[in-house]
Amino acid sequence: MSAPARTVRDEPITIAVLGGGTVGAEVVRQITAQQDDFASRVGAPLRIMGVAVRDANRARPGIDPELITTDTLGLAGSGADIVVELMGGIDTARECILAAMAAGSSVVTANKALLAADGASLYSAAEEHGVDLYFEASVAGAIPLLRPLRESLAGDRVLTVLGIVNGTTNFILSQMEERGADYADVLREAQELGYAEADPTADVEGHDAAAKAAILAELAFHTRVTADQVSCEGISHVTLADVEAARQMGFVIKLLAVAERNIDAEGNDRGVTVRVHPAMVPVDHPLASVRDAFNAVFIVAEAAGELMFYGRGAGGQPTASAVLGDVVAAARNRVSGGRGPGESIYAELPVLPLEQAMTRYYVNLDVADRPGVLATIAQAFSDHGVSIQVVRQDGHGDDAGLVLRTHQATDGALADTIDALRGLDAVKQVVGVMRVEGEAGS
Amino acid sequence: MSAPARTVRDEPITIAVLGGGTVGAEVVRQITAQQDDFASRVGAPLRIMGVAVRDANRARPGIDPELITTDTLGLAGSGADIVVELMGGIDTARECILAAMAAGSSVVTANKALLAADGASLYSAAEEHGVDLYFEASVAGAIPLLRPLRESLAGDRVLTVLGIVNGTTNFILSQMEERGADYADVLREAQELGYAEADPTADVEGHDAAAKAAILAELAFHTRVTADQVSCEGISHVTLADVEAARQMGFVIKLLAVAERNIDAEGNDRGVTVRVHPAMVPVDHPLASVRDAFNAVFIVAEAAGELMFYGRGAGGQPTASAVLGDVVAAARNRVSGGRGPGESIYAELPVLPLEQAMTRYYVNLDVADRPGVLATIAQAFSDHGVSIQVVRQDGHGDDAGLVLRTHQATDGALADTIDALRGLDAVKQVVGVMRVEGEAGS
Repeated sequence: MSAPARTVRDEPITIAVLGGGTVGAEVVRQITAQQDDFASRVGAPLRIMGVAVRDANRARPGIDPELITTDTLGLAGSGADIVVELMGGIDTARECILAAMAAGSSVVTANKALLAADGASLYSAAEEHGVDLYFEASVAGAIPLLRPLRESLAGDRVLTVLGIVNGTTNFILSQMEERGADYADVLREAQELGYAEADPTADVEGHDAAAKAAILAELAFHTRVTADQVSCEGISHVTLADVEAARQMGFVIKLLAVAERNIDAEGNDRGVTVRVHPAMVPVDHPLASVRDAFNAVFIVAEAAGELMFYGRGAGGQPTASAVLGDVVAAARNRVSGGRGPGESIYAELPVLPLEQAMTRYYVNLDVADRPGVLATIAQAFSDHGVSIQVVRQDGHGDDAGLVLRTHQATDGALADTIDALRGLDAVKQVVGVMRVEGEAGS
Repeated sequence: MSAPARTVRDEPITIAVLGGGTVGAEVVRQITAQQDDFASRVGAPLRIMGVAVRDANRARPGIDPELITTDTLGLAGSGADIVVELMGGIDTARECILAAMAAGSSVVTANKALLAADGASLYSAAEEHGVDLYFEASVAGAIPLLRPLRESLAGDRVLTVLGIVNGTTNFILSQMEERGADYADVLREAQELGYAEADPTADVEGHDAAAKAAILAELAFHTRVTADQVSCEGISHVTLADVEAARQMGFVIKLLAVAERNIDAEGNDRGVTVRVHPAMVPVDHPLASVRDAFNAVFIVAEAAGELMFYGRGAGGQPTASAVLGDVVAAARNRVSGGRGPGESIYAELPVLPLEQAMTRYYVNLDVADRPGVLATIAQAFSDHGVSIQVVRQDGHGDDAGLVLRTHQATDGALADTIDALRGLDAVKQVVGVMRVEGEAGS
């Protein structure tokens, strides 16, 4: 009754690895250490043809020195079955990937910046040369996420993607919340621990998350989305007071990558919105308990309903796990003569500006302590077509405060309302404003 | 710069659907309603050739009556590109699937019972006839889980799978915990709401979860596992007192499907253990917050680390989402001339009996209130090589109680310890015993 396992052929699947950093070295080590497992899973042995590095003199434990080369473009175009691009950066990486595809190689890459800037030219070359393009490691590290989006959900209609896709900012926000520590203090600590870079801009200002949001949106909505179309706001202005105010209302603050279908009253697609910003999430939402450097992506699809994918978003080993899954997939396709899923961009939905995104605001105001203030403020919301869901008045005299949460409205109407509030005599200061995501209903 | 989308060919991919129940009807409706989307995603239009049902006279809204047939085996063997098996049961379903494969059809099935009983003959036939076998919907409904295990983690080494894979029991346990309601009352309510069957045995005794555990273990460990090798204990004996005791210690009770690599001190594989039983899970574990009828599967892999997949485990629409993802995958393979991943059973690890599983116990004892009781009891644990992690003494006189949690030991040693405790004069009653899962460390 034992099934005939697919036989393992003698002819190897050849692999060229571009980049010998943490992930590249781990990929090479795993392929070497688990060669019998890989051969059985693929149906052919995997053989590393070369590892291209910048500095050939650095010691690289576990990598045969004979494999090392500094001729990256030469190795890329050498015609290996699979080229694994782990160099990062845009221009040189693109040149190498295009050379690889032109030479008939399938490509596995973790390069989110390149995919988010110019995925089109990679897909186009893959199609032209009949090769595979896999990039699971480019978003949310080890979490199997892109394959589910490209394949498992290929028969469904994705409505919303809400992702915690940057570990550094999630670590900072978690620590602020758990320990009541200031943003600047936690950032310094994260830098000391190696969780944040010396220049943390790409993480804390949301640029890293924006590239991932573009990749997720493109796959979810079958629509071309590039990083420059993603509106982006980071966490550097989030204060401990914001975190405390959120907690009092039963929310936590997360930096979210949000990609949504924008649907009109008749249920037709108006377009998609893609944005990165800090947001208040209800404590009982599955994303709220995603702490420290973990990543998670919450997806709502028409038939599947709510889904969440959770795991480690970075690190050499987790990223190598994702890369190796892609290597096995590309290798299996070589052995069977098949192809992985190609680009599936056909919907051409317009990418709408942030102002047209449907969202909800939390607003915290210092107000004058006199009769009629609430009426004046409520009128300002109403004038912009924004309806208030909850309002709480706190304190007296100089400490008088109003905390509100709105119903859903366009981000443009909400932002205009805040501008109008700033112009009111009754409002002494807009203490806090933040979007609210992940709540049921409107 | 726009990439050339793969062209949509005219020749359709033909599909035969066996089973016209909730899921089958939903699959047919979605393929019809979203035909343009499917054509773009696949590269060819999908055409339904027939829907086999038991009762041709029942009204089936949204399904063209011309497609209906009661000749299930005939439709199965008609040579459609893809046969979707949604009949359930074992013998007839197997006969139809084998007929379909013999006729050259790729097969998509949601049939967990058949896969867990005799996946080998399906894989074998798929291999023999060069067709695909996909079965994402067989475990955890809409959650993309089997594709990640078969493909995304194909380059990693899975260590542990902990799954909440039965919605009925998770609903019952969640309600007991949240509302302090009795098992019997919540079960009755679940039956009234349609969350539990009139005969709830398959769910509450863990048989449904055991079939899913076998499928997960087989994919995770590249080793043949059938349902009859899964040790299985249900939730019908779980009391409100157990739930309360767990809460006091910072745990929740979940019915878990557990599949683990059993590794010796040198790090070599001794085998795998696969079991279903209620377990105490720490409240801060990602599985603890999976409530009501939701499913989630937590996976630990060597390189990827901790992963979790969360979503709806049942229901017509969610299950249809998983089936349709598989249909698109099988259809893309037909168009590209490729093959999906085949069976990957090569490790042949022994499936070990429950006694050899490594686990930890929570034990709640009514004890005699006299000096030396703790020493006597501690000795009983020590005699079996079981070390105690935490012990708490409560009450006096007739109410004297001891609550313990052990360190990790073999299930056999732990079970023997409980037997020994039952024989001690100092122990008036073993009030509660439950395994503990999901805690860090040993």
